[in-house]
Amino acid sequence: MESLSVALGSRSYPIHIGAGLIDQRALYAPHLRGAAAIVTNSVVAPLYLARVRAALEAGGARVAEVVVEDGEQAKGFPTLDRVIDALLSARLGRDGVIVALGGGVVGDLAGFAAAVYQRGVAFVQVPTTLLAQVDSSVGGKTAINHARGKNLIGAFHQPSAVITDVATLDTLPDRELRAGLAEVIKHGVALDAAFVDWLETNIPSLLARDRDALTYAVRRSCELKAAIVAQDEREASVRALLNLGHTFGHAIETATGFGPWLHGEAVAAGMVMAARLSSRAGMLAPREAERIEALIARAGLPTRAPKLPLERWRELIAVDKKNAGGRVRFVLLQGVGRAKLETGVDERLVDEVVAATSAAAVQ
Amino acid sequence: MESLSVALGSRSYPIHIGAGLIDQRALYAPHLRGAAAIVTNSVVAPLYLARVRAALEAGGARVAEVVVEDGEQAKGFPTLDRVIDALLSARLGRDGVIVALGGGVVGDLAGFAAAVYQRGVAFVQVPTTLLAQVDSSVGGKTAINHARGKNLIGAFHQPSAVITDVATLDTLPDRELRAGLAEVIKHGVALDAAFVDWLETNIPSLLARDRDALTYAVRRSCELKAAIVAQDEREASVRALLNLGHTFGHAIETATGFGPWLHGEAVAAGMVMAARLSSRAGMLAPREAERIEALIARAGLPTRAPKLPLERWRELIAVDKKNAGGRVRFVLLQGVGRAKLETGVDERLVDEVVAATSAAAVQ
Repeated sequence: MESLSVALGSRSYPIHIGAGLIDQRALYAPHLRGAAAIVTNSVVAPLYLARVRAALEAGGARVAEVVVEDGEQAKGFPTLDRVIDALLSARLGRDGVIVALGGGVVGDLAGFAAAVYQRGVAFVQVPTTLLAQVDSSVGGKTAINHARGKNLIGAFHQPSAVITDVATLDTLPDRELRAGLAEVIKHGVALDAAFVDWLETNIPSLLARDRDALTYAVRRSCELKAAIVAQDEREASVRALLNLGHTFGHAIETATGFGPWLHGEAVAAGMVMAARLSSRAGMLAPREAERIEALIARAGLPTRAPKLPLERWRELIAVDKKNAGGRVRFVLLQGVGRAKLETGVDERLVDEVVAATSAAAVQ
Repeated sequence: MESLSVALGSRSYPIHIGAGLIDQRALYAPHLRGAAAIVTNSVVAPLYLARVRAALEAGGARVAEVVVEDGEQAKGFPTLDRVIDALLSARLGRDGVIVALGGGVVGDLAGFAAAVYQRGVAFVQVPTTLLAQVDSSVGGKTAINHARGKNLIGAFHQPSAVITDVATLDTLPDRELRAGLAEVIKHGVALDAAFVDWLETNIPSLLARDRDALTYAVRRSCELKAAIVAQDEREASVRALLNLGHTFGHAIETATGFGPWLHGEAVAAGMVMAARLSSRAGMLAPREAERIEALIARAGLPTRAPKLPLERWRELIAVDKKNAGGRVRFVLLQGVGRAKLETGVDERLVDEVVAATSAAAVQ
């Protein structure tokens, strides 16, 4: 087992990474004070719920469980309300802990429930998808979606611990594995050129689920993300670099109704768009943009966005939360591994990229 | 104008108290960076919205407005969703500020919207009811209600400033003035015996809306509350003392469907119950409990709760959020001005108090 720390003063917390961690009671024990409530979904529950429950009960906790539907539609208010209702039924007190067992949707939903239930209770992330393990379980961003866009209602609420069992990736469908790789690639492309070199060599091992390769990819992603979060918890500055590909990606997810495109797939196409925009803006050499696109394609991820009217693109980009004083802020690239925030991007360049890159059929 | 500070390090903020402050642009100016959105209700809007809007526009802000329905039913998810939708329509960015113009409901709702909109934006409280001026606008507690109880979904999110114009109390209905006095009395009864002496003398002046008396009552309440919040922002300890009367009070509001009883009225009856429980538990001399009851009665506030089945009381008290490890924590009194948290209260004593004190017809 490897352990990293997200350094946030009194709110610092460990990330434990290894195979077979999901039912190690000693990892849960430090975080149990009162009752526990596991939030998971209908796909993950039959696989891992009983093991996590047993580990918590072995720690002496009274354990409640809430099983939500699978998929992005669970990140809405009706499901949040159901989770809150279950926590109240279970009489979870302010000293209770919520355990988020599942992928990004479960982590975001359960984390937001923990942020707002009785004005905030503790929670532990137990991510079971690659996307959640390398990205969404770390850093305390929690949210639900609004009809006008993704993650528009949320909170910064750090977990008490992240328990990442890479063995749970054995049960992950191929398509979701690839979607997780999009965020792995994002960490390299935004922040670490050497990691991109490593990925170019190791994409086949990752797709073949080589456990050592996966463990390294998870650890390096978490290290990169933890360092950024420690510098800028609330995304006042550098943390925004982790949104590479997300302005376009969120637009794709919103336009297609949260579901046909997985989040990682939308981010993959969004990264291609961000790289092309960087290139058109004269910041990135065209062959670097092509290199990024090639890596994304080798991971089996989409490199084209769906076709939408230009007006719809503009509207979706404008509403994205990464607005500053009414102007859209883009994460662009000055090189592989060197992301940069830009607010003064010429809208015509954005229009050109959108026109040239939106061609994919809905997944 | 008098100004106090709530001392919370980098999140410290001023409370300005005086007559005619509501349209003083200099009080708003330090808090404007991007656009502003005023959240108010249908009763307050015709009285004060234009003046606040003008003050913000004079500061150079683009100003949006959201007018919600009057009353406790606005503190639910449907109205929150409408507020969020309006903020998105207005393209309020993360540098925007929400101005909560109204009473406790508007402050709690708008404050919670500020806490979760795009994971948190700034807000300014402009309380226009006595209850909001002496209590709910200070301290950063924000929340909406759940069908199972009040304020069960919320966040701690401190305002950037509180601008309290006592002249707005001129338009407050008598019944709401009295409801606000319940929280004024609470501050004295829980924390400051000298303030209770002052209240016993000055209740007639307060009911007659003597402006000097009101200003003093607001200032003293804010001083007492600010000192507690500075010590314990997140209610890990002493802040819970400010919940005197609230466990019973929330039960009354939930049982009667949030509306027939004003919050302050429910707290008033709840304080009588807490005083009687303290007395039955042997902590408070019976004549002290009678003195508190007499003060509440002189303020024209209810001293009896509605009649409910004993089982319903038990259920409502158990679900109240002030649970610790499944046990209900009561705020009791060791004397006038000396509140104390108690978790080991004998349930039979609670049953006795409930039986002896619930007799009032629904308001």
